[in-house]
Amino acid sequence: MSKKMNAFYAQSGGVTAVINASACGVIETARKHKNKIGKVYAGRNGIIGALTEDLIDTSKESKPAIAALRHTPSGAFGSCRFKLKSLEDNKREYERLIEVFKAHDIGYFFYNGGGDSADTCLKVSQIGDKMGYPITAVHVPKTVDNDLPITDNCPGFGSVAKYIAISTMEASFDVASMCATSTKVFVVEVMGRHAGWIAAAGAMASTDDNEIPIVVLFPEVEFDKEKFLAAVDEKVKKFGYCSVVVSEGVHWPDGKFLAETGLKDAFGHSQLGGAAPVVANMIQDSLGYKYHWAVADYLQRAARHIASKSDVDQAYATGKAAVEFALKGHNSVMPAIKRTSNKPYRWKIEMAPLSKVANVEKMMPASFISKDGFGITKKCREYLAPLMKGEDYPPYKNGMPKYVVLKKVAVPKKLEPFEL
Amino acid sequence: MSKKMNAFYAQSGGVTAVINASACGVIETARKHKNKIGKVYAGRNGIIGALTEDLIDTSKESKPAIAALRHTPSGAFGSCRFKLKSLEDNKREYERLIEVFKAHDIGYFFYNGGGDSADTCLKVSQIGDKMGYPITAVHVPKTVDNDLPITDNCPGFGSVAKYIAISTMEASFDVASMCATSTKVFVVEVMGRHAGWIAAAGAMASTDDNEIPIVVLFPEVEFDKEKFLAAVDEKVKKFGYCSVVVSEGVHWPDGKFLAETGLKDAFGHSQLGGAAPVVANMIQDSLGYKYHWAVADYLQRAARHIASKSDVDQAYATGKAAVEFALKGHNSVMPAIKRTSNKPYRWKIEMAPLSKVANVEKMMPASFISKDGFGITKKCREYLAPLMKGEDYPPYKNGMPKYVVLKKVAVPKKLEPFEL
Repeated sequence: MSKKMNAFYAQSGGVTAVINASACGVIETARKHKNKIGKVYAGRNGIIGALTEDLIDTSKESKPAIAALRHTPSGAFGSCRFKLKSLEDNKREYERLIEVFKAHDIGYFFYNGGGDSADTCLKVSQIGDKMGYPITAVHVPKTVDNDLPITDNCPGFGSVAKYIAISTMEASFDVASMCATSTKVFVVEVMGRHAGWIAAAGAMASTDDNEIPIVVLFPEVEFDKEKFLAAVDEKVKKFGYCSVVVSEGVHWPDGKFLAETGLKDAFGHSQLGGAAPVVANMIQDSLGYKYHWAVADYLQRAARHIASKSDVDQAYATGKAAVEFALKGHNSVMPAIKRTSNKPYRWKIEMAPLSKVANVEKMMPASFISKDGFGITKKCREYLAPLMKGEDYPPYKNGMPKYVVLKKVAVPKKLEPFEL
Repeated sequence: MSKKMNAFYAQSGGVTAVINASACGVIETARKHKNKIGKVYAGRNGIIGALTEDLIDTSKESKPAIAALRHTPSGAFGSCRFKLKSLEDNKREYERLIEVFKAHDIGYFFYNGGGDSADTCLKVSQIGDKMGYPITAVHVPKTVDNDLPITDNCPGFGSVAKYIAISTMEASFDVASMCATSTKVFVVEVMGRHAGWIAAAGAMASTDDNEIPIVVLFPEVEFDKEKFLAAVDEKVKKFGYCSVVVSEGVHWPDGKFLAETGLKDAFGHSQLGGAAPVVANMIQDSLGYKYHWAVADYLQRAARHIASKSDVDQAYATGKAAVEFALKGHNSVMPAIKRTSNKPYRWKIEMAPLSKVANVEKMMPASFISKDGFGITKKCREYLAPLMKGEDYPPYKNGMPKYVVLKKVAVPKKLEPFEL
């Protein structure tokens, strides 16, 4: 690409504590190459912003505001759950993208998301060949689920892992204090519908310095009620208490989620409960132990206040590398994290072809789950530990984090409206 | 008291992120007065440890271990839910206490807890007069519920408030990112069965710098479904999203908790759900908005990783003052926090008579709740802000907090066993 072109950047799918750090990496790096990249236009609410020509002019944001993205959780430009159909199935959307890109001199496309978004980015990267519009599309990895292939880990995961490990440790200390006369079992539900990476992090609460009795329920392991209750009972009898980390994706052998209780309310609506209360009630009914339960939900993926430094650094680095790859003319790629050493933890950024990333889901390897199916192996610990390493505290004002809210100045529209 | 006596210290009721900071204050201060106080014996699992002669010799703990209590959540010596009956109703227990105190030369009694524990401490303080055993009993305030009278606030509350305010802010940033195409309402359930102090803290997520649409459901305000749904709907229509902070104690006009769903499982057991899923389902059924919900439970009161510095300082100071009061011969008292200035925040420790503390519950003043019943007033903000001020991070090792686990060496028993 010889002509100086503008860049499009957007955030997609469920947001994380560090996706804005990637945005920061993209925008700060683009600003350093003003001879090659004009402005960075962010899509308001992901790819939808490109389709509706709803673009945010990031050049209107101050340097400190962009820098503050590094310590601000969530998606500063708005995210979306929207998957482009294939070129064959919905040519109209691709033609609209080209129309918007042309109207705003956009030659670079940076899409920040997980597996589905990698697929969207892959499709956009093919516009050049298939529809004759030159675009350089680079995917910036992001997902708390840690399920993208090729990359050693996904930005967003390390911070959730740290949050869940710390929360499990803290709550376990709590129940250990109470167990003599009160609560004996604490159950926390974590995210991860298909892959048990986040649940695995809960087991990291038990350390070499202090063993904590924890039973983990993975989506990768079919739920066996008897075995599970026996495992909890054994730990309560030995330690006086037990913590349970249950993934939202835990299911019975027939594939039905534990969270689908089959309960109906007075109006006949089915009760959409969490897995944690189901497991907790099960423990009380069968073992008689007093319990407490928590559902972390958004708290876990938004918890920038206790983000992992490794994670923040990698989120920024992948955003930066995406721009550098694009400037070198690489299309249809993704910066992937390559672990080069465990102790000390060292990593570098490599380039992965998007065709090998899109629509591939990386599950927990069997070698990471302990034989009884309720814990993690040493290998898993060695994998997880560096990802949770280091603290990266946001600045505070009056006891509250100083997260930035951008001005989000709209780029004037040039085209007719588009119906989604 | 002229003879040098040992001290008894114990933790009672639900633990907090900073109750061990009070323990640290008690033990470190006692160690500074070795001419007057011998050893500090901690009760294993609260007052039960005194009754069963299950004492922990804190002199066997190193100076760094005791110092580390300041940054360790939960009750390091074990807590209990156990209320002494009155002297008239259960003289046997008081006689046993005296027997244990005599056997171990205990002349000081420090009890660290909330309203019920203040009552226990008050009863022990009367042993001297009523049963002829000289003991100096001082209560050390602790409760996340912030419901003790006289004291401006209770150690333990400021840290929960900070955690809930930050978590609500972070999750609100998250839902704000998602609301265009996905989740529009986020519901978080917080502790506080009778008093809405913790729920009020959720409203602190909205600041002068960034307005966040939040609807708070207080236990002090009878639940009005229509008004509530209208409030949520209005905010979603204006902001695109809304966060709801619901106290576990929210109830219908007839006094029934929202969490009592009346739901039954396949075996006819009633489902002990939280208030959050009930509220969330209500929103979807009536307004059709996609929701997410979280239940913070123990995570909130154990979250030492984001404790308030004000809170940690005050927890330590009340422990320290308790020993100093006792050394001056004050019996049946409690160190209370007196706010002397709001900006800058200044406070000092005063002495409150236990007779005025025990069994009195301090609710949110009506002037702290906004007219519509769904928010907090400026006065409430001014009260809460200083309590959440400052961060007091624990040290970390390999990405995890370095919380201390004490050796808890038992004091050799001298008496016959006692049946509880």
